[in-house]
Amino acid sequence: MNGGKKLSIILFGGDFDKALAAFTLATGSASVNYEVNMFFTFWGLNMVKREMGRRFRGRSGPARLFNFMMGGFRNLPLSRFNLLGAGPRLMTGMMKKNNVAVLSELVEAAKLLKIRFYACEMAMHILGLTKDELIPEIRDVIGVAGFLKLSEGGQVLFL
Amino acid sequence: MNGGKKLSIILFGGDFDKALAAFTLATGSASVNYEVNMFFTFWGLNMVKREMGRRFRGRSGPARLFNFMMGGFRNLPLSRFNLLGAGPRLMTGMMKKNNVAVLSELVEAAKLLKIRFYACEMAMHILGLTKDELIPEIRDVIGVAGFLKLSEGGQVLFL
Amino acid sequence: MNGGKKLSIILFGGDFDKALAAFTLATGSASVNYEVNMFFTFWGLNMVKREMGRRFRGRSGPARLFNFMMGGFRNLPLSRFNLLGAGPRLMTGMMKKNNVAVLSELVEAAKLLKIRFYACEMAMHILGLTKDELIPEIRDVIGVAGFLKLSEGGQVLFL
Repeated sequence: MNGGKKLSIILFGGDFDKALAAFTLATGSASVNYEVNMFFTFWGLNMVKREMGRRFRGRSGPARLFNFMMGGFRNLPLSRFNLLGAGPRLMTGMMKKNNVAVLSELVEAAKLLKIRFYACEMAMHILGLTKDELIPEIRDVIGVAGFLKLSEGGQVLFL
Repeated sequence: MNGGKKLSIILFGGDFDKALAAFTLATGSASVNYEVNMFFTFWGLNMVKREMGRRFRGRSGPARLFNFMMGGFRNLPLSRFNLLGAGPRLMTGMMKKNNVAVLSELVEAAKLLKIRFYACEMAMHILGLTKDELIPEIRDVIGVAGFLKLSEGGQVLFL
Repeated sequence: MNGGKKLSIILFGGDFDKALAAFTLATGSASVNYEVNMFFTFWGLNMVKREMGRRFRGRSGPARLFNFMMGGFRNLPLSRFNLLGAGPRLMTGMMKKNNVAVLSELVEAAKLLKIRFYACEMAMHILGLTKDELIPEIRDVIGVAGFLKLSEGGQVLFL
């Protein structure tokens, strides 16, 4: 029983800093007993690809190109000052130095806190991804109607 | 009667992918009987300009410059991997290949589903745009207070 | 008494246009009697640094580098067409010409309307900022749990 408190996050952006914000909000909310749902769509799917590096995926040429360019969890850029990929590493260093949980720890915490992960059906179609290519923590691949049902009566944030 | 379910989307960003997300959320919600309001502001106004191409608009020099740079519906860039404008076309091709409704179809669906379109008064002032320059489906040009009234009691997303 | 109407804005992005949208929504809502809370995090902290210009802050090298690159209120870039910093000035000119309140006026209005400003604890840790370096209008430095409590029962937007 959490008195109906619920937070649903649509994770559309694929930036390192957006991911940080999303998982901080998610774990912070779950730890004060909110029910938390995360819906990964579009660039956000990068965070839940099973292979964390850059890789060709999908069958069509454009899908393969996009998936390669997007990369995976290890290739999330900073939305500003990416510095050719050094930005996220600098940021992670700054977080460790200040005893702030780094992104990968926040993702682990999210799993432990039983935050529910969902992937967006349409975005997966467009990018030619299958459920097998996503981390096993993804409970389901759902569309807008499914997401609305999950998030009903709670707060919804689009990141 | 939809039991008071309502979704209001503030469309601030002018990216092709944001537009895709906005219209997918809007049409998906409307098709399960949500009342849906879309409020176009700032870069989002590009999606509802009557002329879909690049064009000088507004009277002052800076307004004309911004409107030309922003372009219209046909000039929406991808937020990542725009590839000098090839990105949105590649994406549209990927959508067609996978039988996903492309952006222009989603906009048409939104009109058929009676989703209500509103334009932001302040952003129009800044960019020197008049209601005549927007598509006729724009019901009204409103400010923040008007938007709050419309969206009261429902979900609000900022894209 | 405002009948419980409440708007909470998480200001994550540090763009001039996002700031404009945030303060327009905030002041517009406050002026029709909404209780408004603004939660500044990550790049959004730039808007509430006491020194408005570019400056080294924090103790570690990376923190100093990031703070310098981010700058302060006077260095907010436009998310598109920044034109090496000329974009925000052009935009401000367009706003003045059309009698629209410019960003600095909106911030002043927010203070007068008693909109409450909060800073994000974690982001301040990462960037090595202390409360002394923020404007005095910041009521408190809070975390996610604190923010959830403030925003409960109202609308929450992530910008």
